[in-house]
Amino acid sequence: MPDRLTLAALNDADRTSFVAALDGIFEHAPWVAEASFAARPFATVAALHEAMMQAVLSRPIEERLAFVRLHPDLAGKAARAGEMAAESVSEQAGLGLDRLSDAEYARFERLNAEYDGRFGIPFVICVRRQTRDAVLAAFERRLGHAPGAELAAALAEIGHITRLRLVERVDGPGAPAVAGRLTTHVLDTQSGCPAEGVRVQLYEIGHSARALLLETRTNADGRTDQPLLGGGPLRIGTYELVFHVGPYFAAKSPALPERPFLDEVPLRFGIAEPEGHYHVPLIATPWSYATYRGS
Amino acid sequence: MPDRLTLAALNDADRTSFVAALDGIFEHAPWVAEASFAARPFATVAALHEAMMQAVLSRPIEERLAFVRLHPDLAGKAARAGEMAAESVSEQAGLGLDRLSDAEYARFERLNAEYDGRFGIPFVICVRRQTRDAVLAAFERRLGHAPGAELAAALAEIGHITRLRLVERVDGPGAPAVAGRLTTHVLDTQSGCPAEGVRVQLYEIGHSARALLLETRTNADGRTDQPLLGGGPLRIGTYELVFHVGPYFAAKSPALPERPFLDEVPLRFGIAEPEGHYHVPLIATPWSYATYRGS
Amino acid sequence: MPDRLTLAALNDADRTSFVAALDGIFEHAPWVAEASFAARPFATVAALHEAMMQAVLSRPIEERLAFVRLHPDLAGKAARAGEMAAESVSEQAGLGLDRLSDAEYARFERLNAEYDGRFGIPFVICVRRQTRDAVLAAFERRLGHAPGAELAAALAEIGHITRLRLVERVDGPGAPAVAGRLTTHVLDTQSGCPAEGVRVQLYEIGHSARALLLETRTNADGRTDQPLLGGGPLRIGTYELVFHVGPYFAAKSPALPERPFLDEVPLRFGIAEPEGHYHVPLIATPWSYATYRGS
Amino acid sequence: MPDRLTLAALNDADRTSFVAALDGIFEHAPWVAEASFAARPFATVAALHEAMMQAVLSRPIEERLAFVRLHPDLAGKAARAGEMAAESVSEQAGLGLDRLSDAEYARFERLNAEYDGRFGIPFVICVRRQTRDAVLAAFERRLGHAPGAELAAALAEIGHITRLRLVERVDGPGAPAVAGRLTTHVLDTQSGCPAEGVRVQLYEIGHSARALLLETRTNADGRTDQPLLGGGPLRIGTYELVFHVGPYFAAKSPALPERPFLDEVPLRFGIAEPEGHYHVPLIATPWSYATYRGS
Repeated sequence: MPDRLTLAALNDADRTSFVAALDGIFEHAPWVAEASFAARPFATVAALHEAMMQAVLSRPIEERLAFVRLHPDLAGKAARAGEMAAESVSEQAGLGLDRLSDAEYARFERLNAEYDGRFGIPFVICVRRQTRDAVLAAFERRLGHAPGAELAAALAEIGHITRLRLVERVDGPGAPAVAGRLTTHVLDTQSGCPAEGVRVQLYEIGHSARALLLETRTNADGRTDQPLLGGGPLRIGTYELVFHVGPYFAAKSPALPERPFLDEVPLRFGIAEPEGHYHVPLIATPWSYATYRGS
Repeated sequence: MPDRLTLAALNDADRTSFVAALDGIFEHAPWVAEASFAARPFATVAALHEAMMQAVLSRPIEERLAFVRLHPDLAGKAARAGEMAAESVSEQAGLGLDRLSDAEYARFERLNAEYDGRFGIPFVICVRRQTRDAVLAAFERRLGHAPGAELAAALAEIGHITRLRLVERVDGPGAPAVAGRLTTHVLDTQSGCPAEGVRVQLYEIGHSARALLLETRTNADGRTDQPLLGGGPLRIGTYELVFHVGPYFAAKSPALPERPFLDEVPLRFGIAEPEGHYHVPLIATPWSYATYRGS
Repeated sequence: MPDRLTLAALNDADRTSFVAALDGIFEHAPWVAEASFAARPFATVAALHEAMMQAVLSRPIEERLAFVRLHPDLAGKAARAGEMAAESVSEQAGLGLDRLSDAEYARFERLNAEYDGRFGIPFVICVRRQTRDAVLAAFERRLGHAPGAELAAALAEIGHITRLRLVERVDGPGAPAVAGRLTTHVLDTQSGCPAEGVRVQLYEIGHSARALLLETRTNADGRTDQPLLGGGPLRIGTYELVFHVGPYFAAKSPALPERPFLDEVPLRFGIAEPEGHYHVPLIATPWSYATYRGS
Repeated sequence: MPDRLTLAALNDADRTSFVAALDGIFEHAPWVAEASFAARPFATVAALHEAMMQAVLSRPIEERLAFVRLHPDLAGKAARAGEMAAESVSEQAGLGLDRLSDAEYARFERLNAEYDGRFGIPFVICVRRQTRDAVLAAFERRLGHAPGAELAAALAEIGHITRLRLVERVDGPGAPAVAGRLTTHVLDTQSGCPAEGVRVQLYEIGHSARALLLETRTNADGRTDQPLLGGGPLRIGTYELVFHVGPYFAAKSPALPERPFLDEVPLRFGIAEPEGHYHVPLIATPWSYATYRGS
């Protein structure tokens, strides 16, 4: 990644430097930066991104379709053959789309072909905002779109992709929100205090498998030292937190039954807003618990 | 099963008929019934059972040990070879202990041998009050007992076994409690009403596997038409209820996200009291839920 | 109250007996019973009531207005002077409307006059379904109605009044629901059991005062031996349950602070459905509680 | 109040300046500062306070009693006549103890006399950590103490009083905690978001009256812009938060009944730890709510 630019430097740059500095934000489309140049100066990074998106959205439909066609297939031959633009490669790699099994690859090939036959464009999705499970669900769902709605959906995803790239490239005021956060809090309402030292696991729940994302313990305030997820978009998907409250309560209440009523408490929930804050607390006693989407 | 006797008939029977009528309640030990005869009449079935247990517990330790030794090994050769008393066979069969895999059989053989070497008696447990997972946990735990505590534990299990047999054999007032109950209730606190039509699954959670015990739907009162478990002892073990609230709330609130915060809600809990009532409700909105051991 | 009739006897009665038997259900309007006679036999008490209401609702508007005009003013001169029909008297007396202070009487007089000036009919409301607070709120609210809506509201109230009278007069299958129920349940989720012996008070909350309706204690199941309210319509109004959990938890957990976090827990709630079931439980620990409208 | 000193300056001061600087922290007892001088330098303000308290606690019992006797009666003649030390006056005034009704004054006189007769010292309590209700409860309770326990209680209160004075007088690292905090949070689990714009009232609940302490509204995060209480010790006592959720939910759900199930939700709770953090949230839907002591 090149050094980060500042928005001030961009506002001061001449046309050639401006376009060069934004190269690759919109893949194979230097004209997007060209068309945004006139709108300088930009008060915020968000305003710069909106101007660039506006440059795309104001084009006639045929040019918008041609622009989308410049994007690589998802998990397609280009990903396998290493022919994608460097940034596309690393973004898809984060989801493991560059190392699919043959069966998974075949499924993506089938979906890509069906999608291309229906819409005449490649399936574009901001993979950094998705679990693999969610990518497949979105693929199936968007195949049911009318062409106009689907072109809008593809462009909205390009908005997500380029917003992320721009925030990483350009430093300045008014950066658009691209990061979400998952946090938790374990409260012991038997004793009226935070529950310290409770083992917490976070799983990603796929259609047929579950993957352990991390394991940690609650601190003296009943929270985790770091957010469970954060620093970038949350991936749309289904998750499960497992709180190992059995040992915690057994240490406090020796008279509890050997097979406690509550031991490993799973909280399963969906994340639909990658830039949102999901606070998912556990309010528990040895005989009850509650959770909610908090703030 | 023979026709059920009445307690009144037993109270009126002569010694020979009395002993014959109670044959097999205590395996290979007609002397237990003999010794209880003098205590007639019995006001309740529970009093009859207590008298029989007292006949055992009042014997010297050597006789108590000899009495326990008359019981078959758990999941042992006798079970495999069909040599057990008819009632023992059907009781163990309910847990699948007569059709173990070779590896499981080997594990039980090992535990049986270790237990026999340590205590000189077979491992006795009332299998109808246990999941297979709980039998193995009890086996491991009881191996750590002192001999006196373990003899008491074995006799307590014989108390459970014979209480169940007696209640099935003898009709009369004051039957001891041998049945537990698991019930649920789904309440929709978004709308302030019972949640009707919610799919509910009940799983038994073993050490390494989960087994679907049943699947049902909530009725207009948010309950299930029948208790989830009941009619006999609950099996000590770990369970999971899964409530499919996603479709229920989606039908009521079309604006909910496609990937809802709550879809399949699992409640995992332990049952430690086979004769207890476990009421495990779900109080839910699309964004929160709570549960507790109710009554 | 005369002996209760049976629906079967009514179905068999001749016209004169039929009308006599139903005398007073609809005040000063024997023609309602007359007009219903032809619809015999009635399968249910509810069907009889519906037929009688239909006899009213099918009349031209002038006759419906004249019919409503036969009803006494609420808390009016007739109530004070003892000139009302016997049943009206006892119904209004239940709410204390026959013994208002002079100021309250003046307020009702003012509302009656304003209402009569606006609609040309007396204000009719089924007082047995109302707290005094709710009567005044309804008075104010219905003064804002258009005349047609208000005539419908008055006739709906006459439906409530006569339904109650009919159910008390006639025994038979299919009685319409006229009784609601308020119940509670105190659950101790610190110990995982019903909370026994908790003092519970029920107050009616008026605009400026609160009246203790009853005081009781929870039984071994954490419930009250009798429903808190029941046996007739619940009165629309605002209520408060006060649960004295302080002494209960102090007895179980001596280490709690002298000034406990929870001592008297008030749950304030409105009742809007006189024939509904309001289950208002308290799920509590010394440091938390929850409630909901249950079922 | 004089300018605040720094701990560093105190550590550098000579004996005379040191004693002068701490004048009045312990009323009428310059020897406390004198005795602490030798222990310089103090790493923290807390260490300085502990050294001063140690100077008191290490004296023989007769001297400790004499020291306590230097304190003014609570709400006594000195308070009325303006004869107390300036700081004592303002501290008692905060609780309104300088403007009691004649009946209240008489009650305090009676308690003071009984206490003095029993223990031979004035009743000392850190009034800034108490509601008036709590002062009276403590008075009654401490009258039941054995003399030794009561002397310890009085000295502990002097510890609280002087800790507060010292923290206000001396700036420096390691100040002892003297401030508590009461916060709230309203979460709408019907919509899965913070409840904005909910009117919140905080009352102090006395034995026979309730006083409105403040009224505010929740902000966009469902919290209040400022802690409800804070900036000093919380007063031990009973409080009630009233959340006006009726209008909030009615605006979101027009189909709710006119007499809503939840309108004004009271949460009544005790505060026992003046230096603690009491987080008392409301998790609500139109048909349910929960609260707990959070963190």
